[in-house]
Amino acid sequence: MKAEILATGDEIRSGALVDSNSAHISQVLEANGVAVIRHTCVGDDLQALVDVLHEISRRADIAVVTGGLGPTVDDLSSEAAAVALGVELVLDPEALAAIKAWFAAHKRPMSASNRKQALFPAGSTRLDNPLGTAPGFETAIGGCRFFFLPGVPVEMRRMLDEQVVPRIRSMHGARHCYRIRSLSTFGLPESVVNERIGGFAAHFGDLKLGLRARFPEIHIRLYGSGDDEQELAARLDAAARWVAAKIGNRMVSMHGRPLPAVVGGLLRRHGATLAVAESCTGGLIAHQLTGVAGSSDYFLFAGVTYANAAKRDILGVPEKILTTYGAVHEETARRMAEGARRIAGATYGLSTSGIAGPGGGNAEKPVGTVCIGLAAPRHAFGRRYRFFYDNRSTNKRIFAATALDILRRELLKADGEIHGTEKGSDTGS
Amino acid sequence: MKAEILATGDEIRSGALVDSNSAHISQVLEANGVAVIRHTCVGDDLQALVDVLHEISRRADIAVVTGGLGPTVDDLSSEAAAVALGVELVLDPEALAAIKAWFAAHKRPMSASNRKQALFPAGSTRLDNPLGTAPGFETAIGGCRFFFLPGVPVEMRRMLDEQVVPRIRSMHGARHCYRIRSLSTFGLPESVVNERIGGFAAHFGDLKLGLRARFPEIHIRLYGSGDDEQELAARLDAAARWVAAKIGNRMVSMHGRPLPAVVGGLLRRHGATLAVAESCTGGLIAHQLTGVAGSSDYFLFAGVTYANAAKRDILGVPEKILTTYGAVHEETARRMAEGARRIAGATYGLSTSGIAGPGGGNAEKPVGTVCIGLAAPRHAFGRRYRFFYDNRSTNKRIFAATALDILRRELLKADGEIHGTEKGSDTGS
Repeated sequence: MKAEILATGDEIRSGALVDSNSAHISQVLEANGVAVIRHTCVGDDLQALVDVLHEISRRADIAVVTGGLGPTVDDLSSEAAAVALGVELVLDPEALAAIKAWFAAHKRPMSASNRKQALFPAGSTRLDNPLGTAPGFETAIGGCRFFFLPGVPVEMRRMLDEQVVPRIRSMHGARHCYRIRSLSTFGLPESVVNERIGGFAAHFGDLKLGLRARFPEIHIRLYGSGDDEQELAARLDAAARWVAAKIGNRMVSMHGRPLPAVVGGLLRRHGATLAVAESCTGGLIAHQLTGVAGSSDYFLFAGVTYANAAKRDILGVPEKILTTYGAVHEETARRMAEGARRIAGATYGLSTSGIAGPGGGNAEKPVGTVCIGLAAPRHAFGRRYRFFYDNRSTNKRIFAATALDILRRELLKADGEIHGTEKGSDTGS
Repeated sequence: MKAEILATGDEIRSGALVDSNSAHISQVLEANGVAVIRHTCVGDDLQALVDVLHEISRRADIAVVTGGLGPTVDDLSSEAAAVALGVELVLDPEALAAIKAWFAAHKRPMSASNRKQALFPAGSTRLDNPLGTAPGFETAIGGCRFFFLPGVPVEMRRMLDEQVVPRIRSMHGARHCYRIRSLSTFGLPESVVNERIGGFAAHFGDLKLGLRARFPEIHIRLYGSGDDEQELAARLDAAARWVAAKIGNRMVSMHGRPLPAVVGGLLRRHGATLAVAESCTGGLIAHQLTGVAGSSDYFLFAGVTYANAAKRDILGVPEKILTTYGAVHEETARRMAEGARRIAGATYGLSTSGIAGPGGGNAEKPVGTVCIGLAAPRHAFGRRYRFFYDNRSTNKRIFAATALDILRRELLKADGEIHGTEKGSDTGS
């Protein structure tokens, strides 16, 4: 079954609003075994809407349309569907009563224009909206079943899950399952990841494989389908293990978890705590770590020490180190990591000092240079890296990921000492 | 002139990636006097790409296509254009040399597949990519001029500005100017902003006005066009001043600058420095402040003190305060701000302590509660706020913006004492 998605509205057409609905609908449809072949967006223009409904009806079996169900004169989805079908709009008394009840419950005055939201193309089926005033509807144009939903994401998502997906699943009848398994890697270029897993098709020809750059990570996605859910899960597991063996310790997560969550999981497993000293990453590492719910169990402190005086007075980096080596140096980074670890009483200290740009670079230490320090219970080190991005924000992100990944591999090594070598950071969880 | 936008790639088609490129391109084209009539997305499928190129060529005068210029077999844009044109792909030796030079400069091995990126449909014009390995190209299919750009946003945007926009402007020949003026507000609901600027059309009927929610800010956008650039700028300026007077001190920037940049500009103007103590925002305030180039001139230090011990030992918040009031309290927040200010030797200290969720809330201090502290040279205070978002990341963002906005209004007040009252944070810059 082939599906298309249509987003309507001048806000999206003109770029005032980014359309995140279509991506969400695509993912839900594909997870339910429907191939999405195209997305389209047109504005609040009756003829453009009618044209595109006809076009979609000739190409697709299923279409999901968002937007244009509101009370204003710009909301044209019902009218466009009626024109495309060659039928009248008719008032649905039940829908009108529900809209009246919604306004009463929310203690807001109902305007005359809201009556428009109870008008549907003759012969269509209403789709109730439990969260708002705009009901949707289902109708067939040519051989294509169209589901019209509101554009408000929270309303659209709920109606998609509760009303559209069950109808679509009943269309293809079978109990066929579809699963996507995502694995995340860091530190290898996309071309190298691609080469390493080159033999995949020969081993797992029944599964589909795709690479997805989610900077700074690269995700490997495995797609499978089958009649037996357990058997499908076992096949995906075997394929994920094969991929993990090819990628080695550059595999961040066997389940697509982002780096800060994986690092957090490892710290938790070790009963370890972390303190961070950030210069060039400016708080991004702390922000990413604390974005994980429950991170207060292992994350104690981050010092964002932009000024040298803060590196000296708060982290205790000796003045002599700063004057001898400068702020961006392996030795300074190591001392910063040790200082953060010491003042917070943490198991590990992690630090960054570098040049994110646009200013501050020189011939010896150009923009893109970062020194990362790690202080562990029994050793500490500083390392220098050089990246070639010409953008402050991109540099902050790659610096932060590089630092987190050094800690991740350090924790894996400690794992190896305890449990024997493992592939991937979260295979054991 | 009518334009269409085509996003290509299985990542976008399948919903793995939200397409933000098309919205950006729409805004740029519309700001340059081109009406965007449709966006489309199809996957990495040669026939689908050829079909949609033909369709667009029949409807539009201009088309911008993103994605599909990479080195892999999935990257099909050049091939699809060649098929649609009925021509061969030919190797561009200059493009090949540029790709080789890029890999040499970035000290990475060039793989054989990168050679593919120097192949273009015969008769097309290459568009150089100053930031990456994938050049774009321009060609006409039917009566429509197509601009093919890479999908990487930073590369696409640069090429759009520098190479596509000038070509499009020369197409419509005229010296007609189009300008968008963006004003940013924080702290008022969209409906209140809308009400306050209700009389706009009566005063400035020749300008268009739009609201755009860029959480947590709301931007007011003014669109104008005219033959005289100076006259147009003056009209937009007058309208911006009218809007600013209606919005009052909730106007963050008369030029759409984000809150952290506005706060940074005010600190710089005052010759003041800042230290931050973050608990619930977990480094986000520091990350936002240090995202502004040159922030090292005024940003000295942030302490992300998740653990109470770090609040006590590093910021010097008395144990008694923590045990009497708890971590989330106005008094604790005030002491945190004072501690950050003191240990970093900064002019201002700013702090957050609250509950971002999903856990950690209770009846007295539910998820969404935040206390913000400010320490200024002559006074200090703590204030409590309550938000109703059900999401850790959203709460971190609204907490951080609320804290930065308190500092912004404090700096404006200090401005008022020196320079007399001003409307808006950056009118003086």
